[in-house]
Amino acid sequence: MATHHLASWACSLKYSDMPQNVIQAAVRSFYNWAGCAIGGSKHPATTIAHNSLSPFFGPPTASLLGHQGKTKIDAQHAALLNGIASHVHDYDDTHLDTIIHPTGPVASALLAVAEWKGGFSGKDFLLALIVGIEAECKVGLAVWPEHYDVGWHITSTTGSIGAAVAVSKLLGLSISQTTNAIGVAATQVVGLREMFGSHTKSFHPGRAAQSGLMAAVLAEGGYTSSEQALEAKRGWANVVGVTKPGIAADLDKWLGMNAEASEHGVGLFSAGVGRWEILRNSFKPFPCGIVIHPIIDASTQIHGDMKTQGLDAQNIKSVHAKVHPLVLELTGKRKPKDGLEGKFSVFHGAAIGLIYGKGTPSEYEDHVVQDAKVIAIRDKVNAESDKSLGADETIVVATMSDGKILERHVKHAVGSLEVPMDDGMLQRKFVDQCAAVLGDRVQAASEICWDIEYAKDVADVAKLL
Amino acid sequence: MATHHLASWACSLKYSDMPQNVIQAAVRSFYNWAGCAIGGSKHPATTIAHNSLSPFFGPPTASLLGHQGKTKIDAQHAALLNGIASHVHDYDDTHLDTIIHPTGPVASALLAVAEWKGGFSGKDFLLALIVGIEAECKVGLAVWPEHYDVGWHITSTTGSIGAAVAVSKLLGLSISQTTNAIGVAATQVVGLREMFGSHTKSFHPGRAAQSGLMAAVLAEGGYTSSEQALEAKRGWANVVGVTKPGIAADLDKWLGMNAEASEHGVGLFSAGVGRWEILRNSFKPFPCGIVIHPIIDASTQIHGDMKTQGLDAQNIKSVHAKVHPLVLELTGKRKPKDGLEGKFSVFHGAAIGLIYGKGTPSEYEDHVVQDAKVIAIRDKVNAESDKSLGADETIVVATMSDGKILERHVKHAVGSLEVPMDDGMLQRKFVDQCAAVLGDRVQAASEICWDIEYAKDVADVAKLL
Repeated sequence: MATHHLASWACSLKYSDMPQNVIQAAVRSFYNWAGCAIGGSKHPATTIAHNSLSPFFGPPTASLLGHQGKTKIDAQHAALLNGIASHVHDYDDTHLDTIIHPTGPVASALLAVAEWKGGFSGKDFLLALIVGIEAECKVGLAVWPEHYDVGWHITSTTGSIGAAVAVSKLLGLSISQTTNAIGVAATQVVGLREMFGSHTKSFHPGRAAQSGLMAAVLAEGGYTSSEQALEAKRGWANVVGVTKPGIAADLDKWLGMNAEASEHGVGLFSAGVGRWEILRNSFKPFPCGIVIHPIIDASTQIHGDMKTQGLDAQNIKSVHAKVHPLVLELTGKRKPKDGLEGKFSVFHGAAIGLIYGKGTPSEYEDHVVQDAKVIAIRDKVNAESDKSLGADETIVVATMSDGKILERHVKHAVGSLEVPMDDGMLQRKFVDQCAAVLGDRVQAASEICWDIEYAKDVADVAKLL
Repeated sequence: MATHHLASWACSLKYSDMPQNVIQAAVRSFYNWAGCAIGGSKHPATTIAHNSLSPFFGPPTASLLGHQGKTKIDAQHAALLNGIASHVHDYDDTHLDTIIHPTGPVASALLAVAEWKGGFSGKDFLLALIVGIEAECKVGLAVWPEHYDVGWHITSTTGSIGAAVAVSKLLGLSISQTTNAIGVAATQVVGLREMFGSHTKSFHPGRAAQSGLMAAVLAEGGYTSSEQALEAKRGWANVVGVTKPGIAADLDKWLGMNAEASEHGVGLFSAGVGRWEILRNSFKPFPCGIVIHPIIDASTQIHGDMKTQGLDAQNIKSVHAKVHPLVLELTGKRKPKDGLEGKFSVFHGAAIGLIYGKGTPSEYEDHVVQDAKVIAIRDKVNAESDKSLGADETIVVATMSDGKILERHVKHAVGSLEVPMDDGMLQRKFVDQCAAVLGDRVQAASEICWDIEYAKDVADVAKLL
């Protein structure tokens, strides 16, 4: 019944069913996504895809973000390209329980459809966005963690389903049509982790957006699929979660409609016991793998301490960090050669925090990673695994050449659920990402995105980005 | 090395490397595919997709088959829609070792690209077609049968890879670009078996064609992916074949370049020991699951016997068939309600063979399945599982009301590798499928397709279909 549950819940949810904090989380998710998509709009992964696929572009009905309304293409390709752009700097949001980056596939599809069709208010848009994000996170929870461990990029494998449910909601499809849309989306399983480190990683959420959009449009037209796409013996969960024992029970748990059976299931919100996954969504202060965030946070704090005390990073003698064991496993690259490799180097993360007091996309440009000054500090950083630390915890000790010691203990890195980025930090991140693309239009774009809830027609928002 | 092997083999193969029987198999595969795609062009699965997606169609550069050049759309959507049409009657070809329907994804992508770009000869086309079909069948063999058993529709999960390799070959991509194309295709794993029985089943080969085409176009533009997309720990084979033990050895076996390591690997043809998978491709005489073919064959032969002896099917008293156990497991539907269900009824298969002496799409139309005359005979058919029979074997005994007994023993059903459809049968199948769509243009279309090898520009062929 999981597929039917999901479809009927999605169809029945009303704006008034959602608490204010859920709506606020959706606004923040959209805002962060828009900044990432604008900021990633000039990356080669985006521009190569744009140029290569331009012979196929259909009627110009949907805007490419970062082009300020000057470039419109068909909605399918807009969903693809905005989805690619939003993920390409590894700077998008993270549902920490599943490490799904939920907004990319859903918002990329939704914004394209909203502009193509026209006439949808900000509230229509946010309702559909929330429905889609809940859908992808709930189905992701049902197959997590084995699904990811095997090698699936869970953002896109669940993202097509989330995008399909969201577009179905926006277009007002029936339960039966939404069920078919889920099926057409579920059968398109995009995303192998082996692609990490190449352009194809960011292709994944883009293609998920496009696949989900297509699924909803086909279902609206009467295209049929299975009514048990998620739970059938040879349906989505059993096939992509084949190594997970007891997956039927997990589907019930996360997609249940019955409060007695589950306290986490979708569709339980009206009973007051449901868990909104969007409230567990987090935002990255730094454009790299989340395991490096604690050390950038601590190093940035030490940068502040040095400034206060009139010290200079050039005078650092050595840096010793204690980190969670995953950090060195995933990001232990000692000598990164370029920006992309820098994202997999905890040592680079420490160096930029200490030198610049920040870790933005600028500090991951190739020339920074290759800068002798940065390399000098990077080589002085030593990291030691400590099993007693949490995944978002670190202790960093910098010893200056005069013997002075600066130490910071970060228990929960900024951007975690415990220490979330506040609205001001999100705005600085937006401006920082988008200024080079939008120029003096950046403040206006920021305001438009913050005010998405009050937009009369979301098409007008898309055009201005 | 599997990915690199496949790419470098594909790039190096020349037309002169291929024996005449391989080229002939490719011509027959193309011919059969074109008939299926034209024959399926008016099916709701095709027309709904066409209508629903038309708002996204780009510049009209590629023809929809069955429209005789009157409908051109962008090449991506042409690949999708022709791919859907070619599979929708379950009448396309079958690589029996993997039950991949290999030509749909590859030819649908290739023909669209050939027409879009223009200037490719029939020989260019056939070379790329063969390269693509070998690619998808070899990677399919590496994950078979566990991959299919888990629930993947192997035609499309391998088809995107085959289409990407084929389009890369046609466009003359380098080994490095072809490797990237394989990666972008491999990361798009489309097709759950749960969708069988709905429109989404035929969406699978169409989407595989489109995904493979897109992969090659992106790779040509410089888009990067993994260089070990197929064999990496979290690459295609390990992820989609996660339940298969020893998959690394199977990749070596089927994608090896070294005759000492394997006698089946791709790229061994020049050493004279390679196995061409296209020579193991078969064609369906009947538009239904292959397990019903023996009983239709035997019943059709009995129809001939009745005719010779002046008997009428109306006077059949009872029919008793011995069949392989899989037949009743997969197609034991006693009372099919419509054409689609009829394809899963061995009893309907016997009835149409006995009454009409054939089993073409006409005999699977709803009104035939619901015809009282057909139902009367169908209800008289009894089938018994017999483990001693082969999967393509049956014994059918019809008892007439006057006590006369007619018996046929089919050891290998027509369409099997042992009793292949000859060229005349393929031509009758083509005409039978396409006459209603093409009218009096059907013979000309048949001739154009047979002569594909000698086409100066394949774009001219596409236009005429």
